[in-house]
Amino acid sequence: DISGVVWVDDPVDIALRSDVDVVVEVMGGDGDPALSLLRAALKAHKPVITANKALLAQHGFSLAQLSEDTHTPLLFEAAVAGGVPVIKALREGLAANRIDALYGILNGTCNYILSTMEKTGQSFSDVLVEAQKLGYAEAYPILDIGGGDSGHKLVLLSALAFGTVPNFQGLSINGIEHVQADDIMAARDFDYRIKLIAQAQRLADGRLLQMVAPTLIPKSSPLAHIDGALNGIEIIAQSAGASFMAGRGAGAGPTASAVVADLIDIACGRSMPYIFGRPTTELEPCSPANFEDWSGGFYLRLVVCDKPGVLADIAPILRDHAISIDSMVQRGQSPNQPVKIIILTHDTTGKAINGAIAAIAKLDAVLESPFVMPILTL
Amino acid sequence: DISGVVWVDDPVDIALRSDVDVVVEVMGGDGDPALSLLRAALKAHKPVITANKALLAQHGFSLAQLSEDTHTPLLFEAAVAGGVPVIKALREGLAANRIDALYGILNGTCNYILSTMEKTGQSFSDVLVEAQKLGYAEAYPILDIGGGDSGHKLVLLSALAFGTVPNFQGLSINGIEHVQADDIMAARDFDYRIKLIAQAQRLADGRLLQMVAPTLIPKSSPLAHIDGALNGIEIIAQSAGASFMAGRGAGAGPTASAVVADLIDIACGRSMPYIFGRPTTELEPCSPANFEDWSGGFYLRLVVCDKPGVLADIAPILRDHAISIDSMVQRGQSPNQPVKIIILTHDTTGKAINGAIAAIAKLDAVLESPFVMPILTL
Repeated sequence: DISGVVWVDDPVDIALRSDVDVVVEVMGGDGDPALSLLRAALKAHKPVITANKALLAQHGFSLAQLSEDTHTPLLFEAAVAGGVPVIKALREGLAANRIDALYGILNGTCNYILSTMEKTGQSFSDVLVEAQKLGYAEAYPILDIGGGDSGHKLVLLSALAFGTVPNFQGLSINGIEHVQADDIMAARDFDYRIKLIAQAQRLADGRLLQMVAPTLIPKSSPLAHIDGALNGIEIIAQSAGASFMAGRGAGAGPTASAVVADLIDIACGRSMPYIFGRPTTELEPCSPANFEDWSGGFYLRLVVCDKPGVLADIAPILRDHAISIDSMVQRGQSPNQPVKIIILTHDTTGKAINGAIAAIAKLDAVLESPFVMPILTL
Repeated sequence: DISGVVWVDDPVDIALRSDVDVVVEVMGGDGDPALSLLRAALKAHKPVITANKALLAQHGFSLAQLSEDTHTPLLFEAAVAGGVPVIKALREGLAANRIDALYGILNGTCNYILSTMEKTGQSFSDVLVEAQKLGYAEAYPILDIGGGDSGHKLVLLSALAFGTVPNFQGLSINGIEHVQADDIMAARDFDYRIKLIAQAQRLADGRLLQMVAPTLIPKSSPLAHIDGALNGIEIIAQSAGASFMAGRGAGAGPTASAVVADLIDIACGRSMPYIFGRPTTELEPCSPANFEDWSGGFYLRLVVCDKPGVLADIAPILRDHAISIDSMVQRGQSPNQPVKIIILTHDTTGKAINGAIAAIAKLDAVLESPFVMPILTL
């Protein structure tokens, strides 16, 4: 019976009511009405709890300024990996550390799809349709599948971890829509698994690399064991070392757990008006790095005509971009059928890989756009 | 150059100095001088940060009362799994949850020894001697090896998780000294690994079971992948679900990370004078359950004479204690040599197992005390 509950037509009215102490926003959406509600609440000195990563990724800095100006806290534990108190861990538990890097599986839908593709060998689109039927994926899943949701969450984690102004525009994002079941099997043969990894790291030149991409990770990495709709985050901290947190990312229970934890922090007077753990004047505006700046090995999938000389065309291109091959697999098919070549490279850069695949794509014998994934060595 | 540092002869003097704001205690030891220092500091209204699990496991409740009476916080993030902010996660991050159970690998020395035994096939004593040479184990390692250190940490985690008066005396503790390399190999054949698991769970009758024991855990469990000197904790919470945290447990960096995080909490005014997350009047004095109350499968290692009829003597004893066999292995040896029989049981209780092994131990053909380990299904 919710007949005793007060209803309002405009969410902003909630912020203005004198019998409201704290505003909890779980509507979602990266603009109004959520943004107006949050602004009105802070201006009315009512602490805010939100699960809205999209909004914070886009408007986090201005909301942080408003929180500070009004001395009113805004907490968002539920916005990232709900069942795992990772926001608190970064903001408080690891506050003594300079963070070098973080790597996360932050979107349960993508992880469910990739896990299921691996288990059943089904194609991406078949698993997606099934996941939609089961309610694991939304009807319009582009924000999940395309990596945007992971990107929103990554921006919040990296602002906390690196003390930078949240910068969603500076992200490199690739989704999982082009991952094929064959890629997963090929990766497995080399003792890797494929996960949608959101990563952030401070480069030697001070720039911040924030990247979301389907990524090969070694089977021995704790992230490789995060299956189904779970979330996991690995944090590389200078004093504490590498630490790992995992659990349920979304759903009613985990979200409620995070929201109520924030509410308890507010009730206990433990929360401060610094959304990202420090005053906004101390948040660095970071120069973004991108995919081209990423260093490491890469996985390449090429689809070529099965005719003599193709490899003789590809090999010099890799050499000219100083890319050296770690492993290569070409599986025999019927003659004159397209052939898949899988190449795992030694360490190189995203820039070299982009140069090489642009040249490779121009070869007559290459039938599809080359598909590239970074290889993480955790 | 530490010539500018003030030295005192009696640690308690530190608490009495007017130029000391916060007392950090990393001496260790479950009594004086650490206890006197902490009491003096709290009485002088100086917040305390300690890494001393032994002291808190024994004197946690009286220190919590003193902290409350003096309105002075005492924080201990460094006492358990230093590089992993698990104390904060239980006290604050998961504060909205009723916790059902927790399972931890909390002692790096034991985990290093078991991991090395598994990797090299060496005996417990050989690996221990090596670990002592390398500085991974202390010269008198009984507190680590015997499970006492894990027990101290477990008591602190379970007081936070279950809201109970810390009760070290109520623990069931078994160490790793009787684990043989053969046990590890036999467990592996059944897809289990052996870890020193500290576990706490609330039983249906309200009693609290706290147990430290070498334990079989499925290879698929995240705890099974915690190798070497790392720590890991799995927390089963009613709303958040199962969550998992892992990282470096001890050493200079992780301990400093935890101590400074506590210091920041104190400096920010975020810390409350409730050591175990709630007023001492709300901590329940729990009735302890013990090994006999534990429900689940068990691993039994029996060493018997290789002569006819031995199994015919053992089988009825198991049947009479309502213990049913899941798997059994007996490896052939030279005739008339002692034979090892490994039995994995279906779910039963510690009480039934204790009854059965007491009867089995009395058989003439049984040459050694039967060795028992619980099997966890996570």
